[in-house]
Amino acid sequence: MDYYFGVDIGGTTVKIGLLNAKEELIDKWEIKTNIFNHGESILSDVASSIKNYLVASKIKNEEIIGIGFGVPGPVVGSIVKSCVNLGWVEKDVKKEFLKYIDFNPKIYVGNDANVAAYGETKKGSNKKYDNAVMLTLGTGVGGGVVINGLPISGTNGAAGELGHLKIDHRYHFRCNCGLDGCLETVASATGIVRIFKHHLENHYSVLSGREDLTCKDIFDAAKANDELSLKVLDEVGYYLGEACSILSATLDPEVFIIGGGVSRAGKILIDAIEKYYHKFAFHSTANTPFTLATLGNDGGMYGAALLAKAL
Amino acid sequence: MDYYFGVDIGGTTVKIGLLNAKEELIDKWEIKTNIFNHGESILSDVASSIKNYLVASKIKNEEIIGIGFGVPGPVVGSIVKSCVNLGWVEKDVKKEFLKYIDFNPKIYVGNDANVAAYGETKKGSNKKYDNAVMLTLGTGVGGGVVINGLPISGTNGAAGELGHLKIDHRYHFRCNCGLDGCLETVASATGIVRIFKHHLENHYSVLSGREDLTCKDIFDAAKANDELSLKVLDEVGYYLGEACSILSATLDPEVFIIGGGVSRAGKILIDAIEKYYHKFAFHSTANTPFTLATLGNDGGMYGAALLAKAL
Repeated sequence: MDYYFGVDIGGTTVKIGLLNAKEELIDKWEIKTNIFNHGESILSDVASSIKNYLVASKIKNEEIIGIGFGVPGPVVGSIVKSCVNLGWVEKDVKKEFLKYIDFNPKIYVGNDANVAAYGETKKGSNKKYDNAVMLTLGTGVGGGVVINGLPISGTNGAAGELGHLKIDHRYHFRCNCGLDGCLETVASATGIVRIFKHHLENHYSVLSGREDLTCKDIFDAAKANDELSLKVLDEVGYYLGEACSILSATLDPEVFIIGGGVSRAGKILIDAIEKYYHKFAFHSTANTPFTLATLGNDGGMYGAALLAKAL
Repeated sequence: MDYYFGVDIGGTTVKIGLLNAKEELIDKWEIKTNIFNHGESILSDVASSIKNYLVASKIKNEEIIGIGFGVPGPVVGSIVKSCVNLGWVEKDVKKEFLKYIDFNPKIYVGNDANVAAYGETKKGSNKKYDNAVMLTLGTGVGGGVVINGLPISGTNGAAGELGHLKIDHRYHFRCNCGLDGCLETVASATGIVRIFKHHLENHYSVLSGREDLTCKDIFDAAKANDELSLKVLDEVGYYLGEACSILSATLDPEVFIIGGGVSRAGKILIDAIEKYYHKFAFHSTANTPFTLATLGNDGGMYGAALLAKAL
């Protein structure tokens, strides 16, 4: 039998999944990400975990056709250019990983958001997409661009850095990247809470006075018709709708896929985005559909394995 | 010998060029675009012109390996979805054109701006680019996006419609597309004159009172240190720099190519764009180079022929 591993390396855990030749996920598990000493043991830890699994499951080394990696940083070829969350400066993931195993599978290395976008286009719904844009709205905003059936990484590994589209011309919140105006500052979970708190000074909300306010609280209050929460939701829809209209005039994708923790808000969020997308989009792209991501935290693992298979 | 025709169909003239197997332009000429009765004779006119040329030049039909077309409208596959300038509603260019000739070359059909962008990446400088974004600043603003060595057309033929990036949040000039905020409204020749006239109400300029003001006048005055012209140039640089920073966070191209009549302003324009691009670009893309297009009106012809060759 042919098998493919998908390895999604995050700052806290590494998710490892095994796909069979029919692209079915037949097993998955996690190991801790050890970022000690510039994350020097991360790849050998992954290799050990996979080797132990193969022995225990009686899968032969030569049945492993490909292993794909998703990493939280810019990737050019198989080289991760920098990866603050893991402590990596520059690392040839393929070259180093192959040192730790005694077989020779195909190796794919990609940025985690790009890889997850690919996973969603191939496994996220009944429909497969060859041209899609995914926005991952979490603590930050990530993105992935799939063109002609493959994710693009860009000259410096920065393609799909959609959290850094300069979209906000009002708040000028400072972004982690050092600039302001970034989509991430107004459409991430953190950004949404920040906008809410900004307005809270002059507005009443059922959430007034609430400590440890989360983005979920705001969406829940919006669903319960809290006026300020609805206003903030509308603003978030404005920024995301405008960003997607710009992406349509650039890429004209088949679909926009919205993922990440913020997307658990569901239809109320999609409706807010579509309201402004329809206003701003170039006429021939005005009907591009929006859909919610469905693979959750498994998207990167799926995408990485499938990209190794596609090599 | 193998030959390739590039056919760039514009609203006024059709440019036809002949490339040899070494990709050298060995002949070119123009015919008038007859837009009478929904442009029904345009493709048969092109076919007649090519057939006459082949007879006169003693090139055999079977030596023509490919013919590429650039058309001023959205293209999906070989079908032009609509083409206001030519009067075409929906037309399968490949199917119709092959009816008019008695040989069977490979046929490529693409949007004129996309095709011209491809031409510039392959023939515009000593360097060839596989990933590039071209902005054509003319009466309007067109664009072309080349990824992995080919122009992308998008789901509805609207990829690279960079004139309709929503960038302006100040003037809200109405765009031909029906919306406002479009890059075209502030960075085309028309848009630049419009911004200049807007400020002329409250500013002195050496161009004050001048009738029939052109974009070239403004750039010339800027070069002569006219304060208002410099201010407008700076604004145009702001809009284009911001647009390119957004394109970099999306596509991370190797290069931005600036073409069209406005680009004849040369270095002063590139400097104005780069000033703001460096301010706004995501850090890893901050050094993406800007270059001027060099093929002028021949870019589309070159690109169309080369795309037919690449089929």
